[in-house]
Amino acid sequence: MIVVMKPGASEHEIRHTAERVESLGLKAHIIQGTERTVIAAIGEKRAEHKLSLESSPGVAEVVPILAPYKVASREVKKEPTVVTAGSLVVGNGQIGVIAGPCSVESEEQILISAQAVKAAGATALRGGAFKPRTSPYSFQGLKEQGLKLLAAAREATGLAIVTEVVATEDVDLVAKYSDVLQIGARNMQNYRLLEAAGKSGVPVLLKRGPSATMEELLLAAEYILDAGNPNVMLCERGIRTFETHTRFTLPLASVPYLRAKTHLPIVVDPSHGTGHTYLVPDMAAASVAAGADGLILEVHPDPENALSDGYQSLSFPQFAATMDRCRKVAQALDKKLGG
Amino acid sequence: MIVVMKPGASEHEIRHTAERVESLGLKAHIIQGTERTVIAAIGEKRAEHKLSLESSPGVAEVVPILAPYKVASREVKKEPTVVTAGSLVVGNGQIGVIAGPCSVESEEQILISAQAVKAAGATALRGGAFKPRTSPYSFQGLKEQGLKLLAAAREATGLAIVTEVVATEDVDLVAKYSDVLQIGARNMQNYRLLEAAGKSGVPVLLKRGPSATMEELLLAAEYILDAGNPNVMLCERGIRTFETHTRFTLPLASVPYLRAKTHLPIVVDPSHGTGHTYLVPDMAAASVAAGADGLILEVHPDPENALSDGYQSLSFPQFAATMDRCRKVAQALDKKLGG
Amino acid sequence: MIVVMKPGASEHEIRHTAERVESLGLKAHIIQGTERTVIAAIGEKRAEHKLSLESSPGVAEVVPILAPYKVASREVKKEPTVVTAGSLVVGNGQIGVIAGPCSVESEEQILISAQAVKAAGATALRGGAFKPRTSPYSFQGLKEQGLKLLAAAREATGLAIVTEVVATEDVDLVAKYSDVLQIGARNMQNYRLLEAAGKSGVPVLLKRGPSATMEELLLAAEYILDAGNPNVMLCERGIRTFETHTRFTLPLASVPYLRAKTHLPIVVDPSHGTGHTYLVPDMAAASVAAGADGLILEVHPDPENALSDGYQSLSFPQFAATMDRCRKVAQALDKKLGG
Amino acid sequence: MIVVMKPGASEHEIRHTAERVESLGLKAHIIQGTERTVIAAIGEKRAEHKLSLESSPGVAEVVPILAPYKVASREVKKEPTVVTAGSLVVGNGQIGVIAGPCSVESEEQILISAQAVKAAGATALRGGAFKPRTSPYSFQGLKEQGLKLLAAAREATGLAIVTEVVATEDVDLVAKYSDVLQIGARNMQNYRLLEAAGKSGVPVLLKRGPSATMEELLLAAEYILDAGNPNVMLCERGIRTFETHTRFTLPLASVPYLRAKTHLPIVVDPSHGTGHTYLVPDMAAASVAAGADGLILEVHPDPENALSDGYQSLSFPQFAATMDRCRKVAQALDKKLGG
Repeated sequence: MIVVMKPGASEHEIRHTAERVESLGLKAHIIQGTERTVIAAIGEKRAEHKLSLESSPGVAEVVPILAPYKVASREVKKEPTVVTAGSLVVGNGQIGVIAGPCSVESEEQILISAQAVKAAGATALRGGAFKPRTSPYSFQGLKEQGLKLLAAAREATGLAIVTEVVATEDVDLVAKYSDVLQIGARNMQNYRLLEAAGKSGVPVLLKRGPSATMEELLLAAEYILDAGNPNVMLCERGIRTFETHTRFTLPLASVPYLRAKTHLPIVVDPSHGTGHTYLVPDMAAASVAAGADGLILEVHPDPENALSDGYQSLSFPQFAATMDRCRKVAQALDKKLGG
Repeated sequence: MIVVMKPGASEHEIRHTAERVESLGLKAHIIQGTERTVIAAIGEKRAEHKLSLESSPGVAEVVPILAPYKVASREVKKEPTVVTAGSLVVGNGQIGVIAGPCSVESEEQILISAQAVKAAGATALRGGAFKPRTSPYSFQGLKEQGLKLLAAAREATGLAIVTEVVATEDVDLVAKYSDVLQIGARNMQNYRLLEAAGKSGVPVLLKRGPSATMEELLLAAEYILDAGNPNVMLCERGIRTFETHTRFTLPLASVPYLRAKTHLPIVVDPSHGTGHTYLVPDMAAASVAAGADGLILEVHPDPENALSDGYQSLSFPQFAATMDRCRKVAQALDKKLGG
Repeated sequence: MIVVMKPGASEHEIRHTAERVESLGLKAHIIQGTERTVIAAIGEKRAEHKLSLESSPGVAEVVPILAPYKVASREVKKEPTVVTAGSLVVGNGQIGVIAGPCSVESEEQILISAQAVKAAGATALRGGAFKPRTSPYSFQGLKEQGLKLLAAAREATGLAIVTEVVATEDVDLVAKYSDVLQIGARNMQNYRLLEAAGKSGVPVLLKRGPSATMEELLLAAEYILDAGNPNVMLCERGIRTFETHTRFTLPLASVPYLRAKTHLPIVVDPSHGTGHTYLVPDMAAASVAAGADGLILEVHPDPENALSDGYQSLSFPQFAATMDRCRKVAQALDKKLGG
Repeated sequence: MIVVMKPGASEHEIRHTAERVESLGLKAHIIQGTERTVIAAIGEKRAEHKLSLESSPGVAEVVPILAPYKVASREVKKEPTVVTAGSLVVGNGQIGVIAGPCSVESEEQILISAQAVKAAGATALRGGAFKPRTSPYSFQGLKEQGLKLLAAAREATGLAIVTEVVATEDVDLVAKYSDVLQIGARNMQNYRLLEAAGKSGVPVLLKRGPSATMEELLLAAEYILDAGNPNVMLCERGIRTFETHTRFTLPLASVPYLRAKTHLPIVVDPSHGTGHTYLVPDMAAASVAAGADGLILEVHPDPENALSDGYQSLSFPQFAATMDRCRKVAQALDKKLGG
């Protein structure tokens, strides 16, 4: 951690700040520049003291050197983590494909979806039973009934189930039916939920919040890892920017960036990341080329009549074509996509 | 709702879309433009069908005309809502001031804070007992012990208590000690928590998420209102933008915008909205001039040694000076600030 | 164009607005909704009148239906434009690769760069002679001397030259030496420069400004097209968002979006789009998979000692490896990359 | 400047980087942390070498300590700069008010505007003669004829003239008629234009680009100052964010931030900063409360029929009411607003 003093900081302020650094258990190393004095604080473990030092008189700013996350860091664990959950394998050259409707709507809908996505090469089935909706007046999901239908679809097809959990009190219930707990973007910083998902021991797909930094995403993962659950997949699903021609902006450079910083596998969601069906196939292929370990895609038997997210869902033929395209890109890069 | 067809949309696609509009219970009104056809869908209540229509063949986009929120809307209730919670009155020319430390740290700390902010004119005491923290390794709050200290401070000073609740299962506990439930920015779209806060009947301070649109904020309020709780204060606390010289960007135009759209009172948080103590006084005054119904400010007896947020907290003398400045602006605009 | 009236708009206001619409040469079509009245304005050519209508009493908002650009639109010209400039071909399944140093620094530097990028498959040479720099104290380029060195490199290798022009008064000079005029991101809305580039008749590479919408980019292109120059390549080079782990956020969904809206070819710049050498190869491959018609990449013989942009430049071996990777992706998608 | 080495950086890489630091004329001070090595580079003048060091092997990142701007910095000149241009005084407790139409449209329009804004207390007249427009099909201004009308309005009212210059070749012409050269947001990084404005010696109003950082704004000012012109006013006019309920987001914390960093006066433009007439009065008052040294406001005799920007212009009565409101706030804070 580097503490930068203000231009006119007094001797007294510099000494005082150095003492505060030492009182935090760090070694203070004072460097007199030509125009400013900086104090290097050596021995820090994490940036947690960063901010309190900023309140000291004479201090201009504090620059952290070490990342605040630890267990998620590649510095701590060099070899990449491969997450396996039933039929789903994500990582190490194996690109998992999680596909299915936004919401579970009926037995028939989820069953034919499961069969269709499996036939096209998906390795897991997605489908929402508990739906967090922006408006209280929108369809909120079939809840436990939806979970049961997902489990039935697994039985019929062998596909692992990925479904969202939105509340601490539902974790056990969802974990009973699902192979992977999805934490949605709105809940990325719902720390109680992260802890509960961590304690469940079930693999977790953690979605990036639309205004979360990479550091905040990794710290959210850290809550799960710290609770004893090593099976975390990070999911880039787009961020909020000034762009309006897409619902979110999908920043694929997250993939190689996260690859460099963490051992956790990285999944991309081009459906939410673009918000428009016609943009999904190209962005799915681009995700694979950027190095993604997995894809999560919304697929619906009849997007026009979907109860949610129809505007960004692929039909079965569109999904099959997208898989072909992605598979070719994966093969060109010596990776294996889907089943 | 206006459905815009693609340039080359066929007769069949236009008819099909019009039929879908009618099947949603709306009246379809087809308008042939010189280059495009649009279909006006009349009778809509809310924009919930907007997105599913976008999946129809030949449709380019769907433009909602009515706002998706209802109960929060000024169209439904013209007269402004005034929220009263013990000593705190927010709205109708009375600018409430909620002040105190980020976290409750000790009995002495919270007591002297309560006395100091009251002496300077605050009308409620803030202080965190349950702290949502970005890192699992940061101080997480004193929990119920913190709530008890807040209640003791209320007893000593008469100030209403405003404190955050982070989980559904804590709502009853927090409601037992606090006069206002604060829903933090990270939980703005934690719908279960919003519903629980709604059912509690206790006044709620709802903070805007850092990437939430005005519409999403009002829909989050709608969850609380819809659960039967009319006492909702909206809180602007800054958004995430490309700016890095402030921790968040505080967009004060939210205040007059919300004034035009909703009857709910609007509170501004210049502490989180700037993230630096030295920017808070001017932005507090600017918030008042922009028409805010309330301010929430972080104040600490010793910011340098605060367990959290010291870098954006005012000391007691800084708070008193800020109150003076804000009071003058309020008076110039014929409003009353604080107690 | 759809004019949305306020909830309580009076008969008089509605009639007045309809008359204003008619006075603009459009046909006004009044639709009475259950809660609001909207007026469809038929016959519009472009959205230019949109904003003035918003000032009329009783008007809530005006929603444009037609895009404001015309000549750039795919509605006007369906077949994709292929831009050819000497050895550079961009479009129609041929992915052009423009590579070279940020700045021309010396004869030797630009010559060995030209030879190296050509050997690895580049089809044009980039290099800045006039450098717009954020700080007045940074290296500003070799100016005409730099242009001469570029021309010499073309003579030696046969590679087309792409170089930036920053001022109207330099257009003739730069056009004398260069095959393509590059308009930089900072100048995307320097309309005089766009007009001058349009009149020059030389192919133009137009970079998106870091906060430009797609519509603004296409309208900037429209300035060039409108001046009689059909050879415009659009270049996505990243936008400014809250992300700080990359210098800009590279939103690759621009590629399929622009493909749907315009016939102009689309080039991607992963060097500026990420700002870090280690992220460039994956994002170059992702750009190809997203459907880009061209790539522009910073390559330097010795990035560590580059006078500008070394931190995002590829070395020669890194560039060759990136080309291999991109070529494989291109071939998998039945396209041809580079020479 | 602090150079942060990667976790596993070798002895050789550390030594090599230290040598590079020394070769830049700086003193290298190596600090061995418990997990990382950092090198403090002492004696730097500006951050210009920052980026080239990032290319060295083993370097993780480079953190600049000193601001890259110099002449604009408060460290160099402590006392605030007051800019005076005819009737306009900006700074030192005197809040200048620049008001008038977006575009000069006719002799009558500009004359009655000048009289009306003067009567309400404005101290300068704004009006565009050269209009940079997003679309080539929009009204582009009356050009020299517009300048002449502005000069006539000055003669009639005594108000100083503020008008935009969009091209280097127009600087002399505009300077002949105008008291202040306005550099628009789109041209904030048009360095040739900045240099020409600098050489003209005429006071400059420099608008912040919608995605410019504070540092980029100050570096743009530095181009003008460096060319020998000390009379620069900085203008905050809103930034591009994800918000759509306002045309731009007006981040008023820029005002106290810039106050702390620079001696140059700060003007705020609530018309462009919000983009809607009904938001302007409150945000003008908020700007004054935030500490602005000046306001620039769009005022039109008949906003509904304005040739540009009518949707964000105040009518004469609205402007007079806004002035009243702002004057009260200014007086409450012991400042003087307008004439």
